[in-house]
Amino acid sequence: MTGGRALSTLCPRTLGRLRPAGVLCLFGAWPLTPLPPGTPGSVPLENHLVTVCQDAPLPLDSGATLGPVTLAYQTQGVLNAERSNAILVCHALTGDHYITGPHPVTGKPGWWEDLVGPGKLIDTRRYFVVCANVLGGCMGTTGPRSINPDTGQLWGLTFPVITIGDMVRAQARLLDHLGIERLFCAIGGSMGAMQVLQWSVAYPERVQAAVVIAGSWRHSAQNIAFHEVGRQAIMADPDWCGGDYLSHGRVPQRGLAVARMTAHITYLSEPALHRKFGRKLQNPSEGVSYGFEADFQVESYLRHQGASFVKRFDANSYLYITRAMDYFDLAAPHDGVLARAFQKTPTRFCLISFSSDWLFPTAESRAIVRALTAAAANVSFVEVTTDKGHDAFLLDEPAFHETLSGFLEGLAQKAGLAPRVPEARS
Amino acid sequence: MTGGRALSTLCPRTLGRLRPAGVLCLFGAWPLTPLPPGTPGSVPLENHLVTVCQDAPLPLDSGATLGPVTLAYQTQGVLNAERSNAILVCHALTGDHYITGPHPVTGKPGWWEDLVGPGKLIDTRRYFVVCANVLGGCMGTTGPRSINPDTGQLWGLTFPVITIGDMVRAQARLLDHLGIERLFCAIGGSMGAMQVLQWSVAYPERVQAAVVIAGSWRHSAQNIAFHEVGRQAIMADPDWCGGDYLSHGRVPQRGLAVARMTAHITYLSEPALHRKFGRKLQNPSEGVSYGFEADFQVESYLRHQGASFVKRFDANSYLYITRAMDYFDLAAPHDGVLARAFQKTPTRFCLISFSSDWLFPTAESRAIVRALTAAAANVSFVEVTTDKGHDAFLLDEPAFHETLSGFLEGLAQKAGLAPRVPEARS
Repeated sequence: MTGGRALSTLCPRTLGRLRPAGVLCLFGAWPLTPLPPGTPGSVPLENHLVTVCQDAPLPLDSGATLGPVTLAYQTQGVLNAERSNAILVCHALTGDHYITGPHPVTGKPGWWEDLVGPGKLIDTRRYFVVCANVLGGCMGTTGPRSINPDTGQLWGLTFPVITIGDMVRAQARLLDHLGIERLFCAIGGSMGAMQVLQWSVAYPERVQAAVVIAGSWRHSAQNIAFHEVGRQAIMADPDWCGGDYLSHGRVPQRGLAVARMTAHITYLSEPALHRKFGRKLQNPSEGVSYGFEADFQVESYLRHQGASFVKRFDANSYLYITRAMDYFDLAAPHDGVLARAFQKTPTRFCLISFSSDWLFPTAESRAIVRALTAAAANVSFVEVTTDKGHDAFLLDEPAFHETLSGFLEGLAQKAGLAPRVPEARS
Repeated sequence: MTGGRALSTLCPRTLGRLRPAGVLCLFGAWPLTPLPPGTPGSVPLENHLVTVCQDAPLPLDSGATLGPVTLAYQTQGVLNAERSNAILVCHALTGDHYITGPHPVTGKPGWWEDLVGPGKLIDTRRYFVVCANVLGGCMGTTGPRSINPDTGQLWGLTFPVITIGDMVRAQARLLDHLGIERLFCAIGGSMGAMQVLQWSVAYPERVQAAVVIAGSWRHSAQNIAFHEVGRQAIMADPDWCGGDYLSHGRVPQRGLAVARMTAHITYLSEPALHRKFGRKLQNPSEGVSYGFEADFQVESYLRHQGASFVKRFDANSYLYITRAMDYFDLAAPHDGVLARAFQKTPTRFCLISFSSDWLFPTAESRAIVRALTAAAANVSFVEVTTDKGHDAFLLDEPAFHETLSGFLEGLAQKAGLAPRVPEARS
């Protein structure tokens, strides 16, 4: 598979040491565990991998170190000679590096298929777009379903607990590998926004611009609570086997599905659920069943969300990544004063929130804007009015797209990046 | 145990056929199943029971009939000679008839201990207060953990699916039994509010006043979704045994705890969780554990909520009662026009909502007020500004108490109910 339609024409211009999506570049001798075919959540082996941290293990916030580390990633477009046109896209909790598809497990388009590609908002004829599966993930990057090289066994729950800081540190190694000193822009929504903020704080000189969508500088009590429910649902499933389910040939599908169902509600909004489903019945002519089957369309929808999620996601990865989000707090090292985290930042910020997002509400973006302003940072902020809730950043939301487009366009013009080449008609 | 402090002095005035709380009045030969002592969720046998529907089975909305039906209830105060001072309190999803305690399972005060009693807001020196465990419940009233008299076996999932309408129909039988033709007032929050609305629609002539707190005329898509998650969590627990867990000597504790944890978040509010817990750690001096134990206080709190809930509630009851709430829709029989449900209603309504309640948001109360107004009903409405969320009706919320107190006082004066007798100082 290829990462984008433009690759075939643009690849010849790619610098020699860069491998675009579609080219397996596994440097280490450390493949993903070949799970039995058809195992729910099993990861295809045709990922685009690079092994970093072989000589210098990755230091983790917990104090542990990890190495070597494999990163699965996708690139699109061409890195220009100045290496000044790289955009790092950071994915959300249950996302992965398949911003464009087809996704190897679901066969569906990528999660930002509408935004990324030649001639699109994030124009791969202008930008070199990189997205890597996060540390702790399950789509090729080192995580709890990888092999611990010291033991030859699956990591499982012996995998070290990681943080958003660790994820970003691993991504920095990937950029080193790709020869990208400074990002034109880092962009992400939700947990991706956390990574973008972390990038701007940990590596301010490496981030020219940061687009923080539906994010926060720390995970709220309510969000920790929802994550804890999801973790408890997974760990309550006997098929979880204390985290050792893969060794037992089992998968905690029911627990993971319940976790997903709970989380999925938080990604939407009450008005959107009302508009989409309301109290519509599965079988309007028959009425309710007076039973516990999915009488309402919203029940059927949720069950489907749970069932399809377990086919593409790993339960332990869910535990580790939710934990990383819970631990995220950029203000904590500064006695709760967020502005100090951004002192003298050279980064140009754009924050975008969605009016109906109750998981990462606008108030949290505003608090970041206040802190950035107090740190004399260059910051723009837009609250997009929509009923689509938190997941609006994944959906067709014109006002959001216009904001993002305008910000990038202004930035690119200022940076003197080559204008878009009109698509040839053939 | 007794139902309230005033009972010992007031009981002699109670009409002969009435049994206040504390007196076992089991008319049928149909006790609760004597579960092994200590079984989580087991129901003490000293409930205050009455068996109704022996001769005339209760017709259910599903088309089935049920009888005899046992109702567990608590009363406080004295029914006056005119039988005009009865207040029916309707409890919420996980509540029961122990409005005052100590609760026989938890040993804690009742859920409205602060509001109900002599000299309190709902003054039992003035009113005769009745509260019954709902149909489908697990604290003595007939439900899935009762015995099916036809088979001699536990009902389990063979218990018919019931509705809010069925709950109210059973309560009407209880009032018949108690000799109460017309209620001075029906009061309830959350699912209790649904019952109060149902009372006003099904038996308008029997309800002089209705206090509808944090309620709705129908369960929203988002609320159905949250309930479905809870049900899936229970049914995913292998200890649920297809609903037959009691016969197997098992209890789906983990699934029920996850259901409760999810629901509990929805009863609070983000600001309240932030104020109460924020990101406070269990062991601040030690920092985070880099593990999956409860690092944050909010996690520990939620786990405690789950663990304590399974000791006092039955998993199948949770399925049945959530289903009854999901099915509730007063507008459905009227082509979605809610006002028609209230045509020519003689009832005086008071609606109270809480500004931070996102489970039954103010907008839903407003919609009821609009419908009542369109039906020319007598209606008052107050939105109480609070950060306490949906559960504010169970908490110390002065503005709510003032509203309720003022409404009842005005109503009582108009009805010529005896003024409060000052408590004797001894």
